[in-house]
Amino acid sequence: MTTPTPPVPAATGVLIAFEGGDGAGKSTQVNLLAGALERAGRRLLVTRQPGGTPLGAQLRELVLHGEHVAPRAEALLYAADKAQHVDAVILPALAAGTVVITDRYVDSSIAYQGAGRSLGVDDISRLQQWAVAGRLPDLTILLDVLPEVGRSRRGAVHDRLEAEGDAFHAAVRAHFLVLAAAAPERYLVVDAAEAPEAIHARVAAWLTTAGVLE
Amino acid sequence: MTTPTPPVPAATGVLIAFEGGDGAGKSTQVNLLAGALERAGRRLLVTRQPGGTPLGAQLRELVLHGEHVAPRAEALLYAADKAQHVDAVILPALAAGTVVITDRYVDSSIAYQGAGRSLGVDDISRLQQWAVAGRLPDLTILLDVLPEVGRSRRGAVHDRLEAEGDAFHAAVRAHFLVLAAAAPERYLVVDAAEAPEAIHARVAAWLTTAGVLE
Repeated sequence: MTTPTPPVPAATGVLIAFEGGDGAGKSTQVNLLAGALERAGRRLLVTRQPGGTPLGAQLRELVLHGEHVAPRAEALLYAADKAQHVDAVILPALAAGTVVITDRYVDSSIAYQGAGRSLGVDDISRLQQWAVAGRLPDLTILLDVLPEVGRSRRGAVHDRLEAEGDAFHAAVRAHFLVLAAAAPERYLVVDAAEAPEAIHARVAAWLTTAGVLE
Repeated sequence: MTTPTPPVPAATGVLIAFEGGDGAGKSTQVNLLAGALERAGRRLLVTRQPGGTPLGAQLRELVLHGEHVAPRAEALLYAADKAQHVDAVILPALAAGTVVITDRYVDSSIAYQGAGRSLGVDDISRLQQWAVAGRLPDLTILLDVLPEVGRSRRGAVHDRLEAEGDAFHAAVRAHFLVLAAAAPERYLVVDAAEAPEAIHARVAAWLTTAGVLE
């Protein structure tokens, strides 16, 4: 939908986030991009949130499959996962010149806990910024999916967030778009209803413009 | 040391926190006060942080005995424990008119993570206030212990925080005193070197003045 041209120095680490609702096809796109970057000879780390560290994996279990978690506790656990992930995995990789692809990052927390859970996007945004010590992605690909499309793609319900209704997912979707609109120079928004290879071609073209892919 | 006289309506729930360094004798004082309140016929709940809920107990294990936890992640896990504890345990008990005694609360997090870990007391204070949705204790008893006294009382080291050196515990102690000095009307500061029964007598006298004990 938008195709800005952000400047990213090719020699340093680059943090790329895939964001979007459940059923948007993020995993598929992460894998396609990882393949392209590997073929281009880039040093690469693929990770995800929540759950990108051993601690994070335990927190992910607690949030998605454990006892009832109070809304503020849930938001704080996602923030703790993020803090550990950034400190232990992402910052060291970026410092070593690696391209880091993360499946979800700060925006998912803001959209799901802030807009979806009505805790307040300002509070969650501050919480998340603090957790990652201000390290936002250089480039974010938002796979924009309509709630009804996401629902049909999700199939069986796997966790607490996926089980929420269309109104919840519509609020989440709307806030992803708000975040992208606020910083268009570092977002690529793609209609997730397009074919996976067509989406990947858009992503690859954007990253080529940005100097991440040759 | 100070004996202010805070006004607490006797018919409603009251939140009482015991704070202080490791080895200050908080558990002993919590038990002595719980006995006195039970003999006075007050409806009572004794709890602790971290670990006052099933979720909190799991988080406590992760923080104290798990892999290396990044400082911001640690602070966020303590805040998540607090949020769950307040939402699931403390607020319902207070609404039912119960006297709630908690072994550690917001001040411990501010002192240990903010002052002790150098994350910044302002950031940790904001984080903790958000986690408890602004519900601070009505009354706090600070058992003030010198680092060297606390160390000798702790005996064998049981967890990561207890294992820190005297400089860490001195910074923590100093910040507990700063917090108490900022709101003297709701703090009783007691020298933890006194005999347990003498300390309990001070606590009981203060709570009688406050209308919590007859």
